[in-house]
Amino acid sequence: MSEKNHQTDVTIIGAGPTGLFAVFQCGMLGMRTHVVDALEATGGQCTALYPEKPIYDIPGFPSVAAAELIEQLEQQAAPFDPVYHLDQQVTALERTADLGWKVTTSKGHSITSKAVILAAGAGAFGPNRPPLANLESYEGKSVFYLVKRREDFRDKSVVIAGGGDSAVDWAMSLPQVAKKVYVVHRRDKFRAAPESVARMRALADSGEIEMIVPYQLHGLTGENGQLDAVIVKDLEGNERTLETDVLLPFYGLATDLGPIADWGFTLERGHILVDPTTCETRQQGIFAIGDIATYKNKLKLILCGFSEAAMAAHAIHSLVFPEQELHFQYSTSKGVPGES
Amino acid sequence: MSEKNHQTDVTIIGAGPTGLFAVFQCGMLGMRTHVVDALEATGGQCTALYPEKPIYDIPGFPSVAAAELIEQLEQQAAPFDPVYHLDQQVTALERTADLGWKVTTSKGHSITSKAVILAAGAGAFGPNRPPLANLESYEGKSVFYLVKRREDFRDKSVVIAGGGDSAVDWAMSLPQVAKKVYVVHRRDKFRAAPESVARMRALADSGEIEMIVPYQLHGLTGENGQLDAVIVKDLEGNERTLETDVLLPFYGLATDLGPIADWGFTLERGHILVDPTTCETRQQGIFAIGDIATYKNKLKLILCGFSEAAMAAHAIHSLVFPEQELHFQYSTSKGVPGES
Repeated sequence: MSEKNHQTDVTIIGAGPTGLFAVFQCGMLGMRTHVVDALEATGGQCTALYPEKPIYDIPGFPSVAAAELIEQLEQQAAPFDPVYHLDQQVTALERTADLGWKVTTSKGHSITSKAVILAAGAGAFGPNRPPLANLESYEGKSVFYLVKRREDFRDKSVVIAGGGDSAVDWAMSLPQVAKKVYVVHRRDKFRAAPESVARMRALADSGEIEMIVPYQLHGLTGENGQLDAVIVKDLEGNERTLETDVLLPFYGLATDLGPIADWGFTLERGHILVDPTTCETRQQGIFAIGDIATYKNKLKLILCGFSEAAMAAHAIHSLVFPEQELHFQYSTSKGVPGES
Repeated sequence: MSEKNHQTDVTIIGAGPTGLFAVFQCGMLGMRTHVVDALEATGGQCTALYPEKPIYDIPGFPSVAAAELIEQLEQQAAPFDPVYHLDQQVTALERTADLGWKVTTSKGHSITSKAVILAAGAGAFGPNRPPLANLESYEGKSVFYLVKRREDFRDKSVVIAGGGDSAVDWAMSLPQVAKKVYVVHRRDKFRAAPESVARMRALADSGEIEMIVPYQLHGLTGENGQLDAVIVKDLEGNERTLETDVLLPFYGLATDLGPIADWGFTLERGHILVDPTTCETRQQGIFAIGDIATYKNKLKLILCGFSEAAMAAHAIHSLVFPEQELHFQYSTSKGVPGES
């Protein structure tokens, strides 16, 4: 077997919180795992999009930063020695002769296993891009979909576009370093925490930011990827030109299931239909958990994904070890007085 | 309304980990809660039986002591001001005229609400008691089912009975204070972590404990509740008399659903059958979550109980607020760039 052909018990696609907990749950049941993710790091959206944001509904954590949750989950999974294949997408999924599955990745790795857990969240994801001519030429130079370091915008003129929490949060934060901050939104209502919106409006009243509402992005001008202005238009077609160095469009996430959509699952509005008590898909041996999975009354909560990971791992156990009966135990059973 | 007649949105029966997280989930959806528990403190078995035992399978906690988990869950629920009715059992559950439910407790409180969540674990619980004549007269004086303070057994002769983790753990620990430690078990196999069993056997080899196997408890002798000996018998009927001050029977938990069993649910082996995606029972408006609930492929894991709490809370939302559509959001949605 070459270095790129792997065999394991369970292949997990997606290294977000649900995928990481699936590693742990499989490990607790004696199953080895390989994990594939398109991103360069584990954690999915938690680390890629909002590492410092607090999450309030993980049981037992009154508040936890997304990146810290991921660190804890990775530490919890570590004793089971998962093999991570990061920075590569799954390109093929095929049935093997012995009723297992072979997963092939964009870096040429192949992983054969009895079962596959799809924990791919919303699929590969990226920002929603505004429909502006020549947008690509500015991206990464003067148009950014994420603020990695606020300091990068010191003494610059910045146009923030959007009406959600990211737009509002940065509208409050960037005036502390930027020379000028515009907020462009297509209406005068913002979908963000009311107290944050109130603080943003107070900044506008005191002249620290300028709110351009209701306006939409209409065009970009500049040279060699460096913006010099953003053109905006209101509903009547009136244009304004905002001189700026940077545009930050915060229009949410575009997601793409990619090849997963073609693998013969039953899809419901882009999600994979599973049995709610095992998370098995229509394809025997393939399970889907977390945001990619759906069933009646499904909740897209990380904590529900954890439970789905446990259910899938238990269902997979009988595929990987058909000869063993699973003597199910609480992790806490050691603490309960028990007679054998 | 008198001080003992309460009205709330959701009545939660059971203040263990699942019940506490149900408080949080209901609170996140704007619903007030009252919580009833038979024990004097929150936490259920976690605090009553094994507060210091580490739990390994709570997502995000590579290891957490049971009591610490409960503290965290209580802190997470606290902002929603739940009202706790502790140290009292539910004695009646009745339908109200407006299609809600009225719960009555053994301390005379009544709580009326639109929905009830049963998070009662295994029901009221207590130790499995060995079938010995006059056992009651020794209980609490020289027969104990839990070790609260090891120091209480200093310089005493102790008979430990049982073959599970509690028996083995205390067989390793008590010789450090006790004058004499016997371990009585009906066979020579112990159901405990192999390394613990090996350490216990090493103590027996070095004479620090005496293993009496295969023997079963047969009788007690003593006066005024104070044991002077435990009589044991092997499979052939041979008796031995072990002089002792204390008997510690570790035969696991006996559980009792109590009046819950009579409330018209569909029971399966002592558990309440629920819809796995809402946790609603056969009785409209009554939900069951955690160990008391069952459905196909149900796992008795705390982490699955958390997910069930979320599912029940969401299902209950439409009962409590029939006029409101639930605009479902991630707790993390604030962190995802989003356009309204």
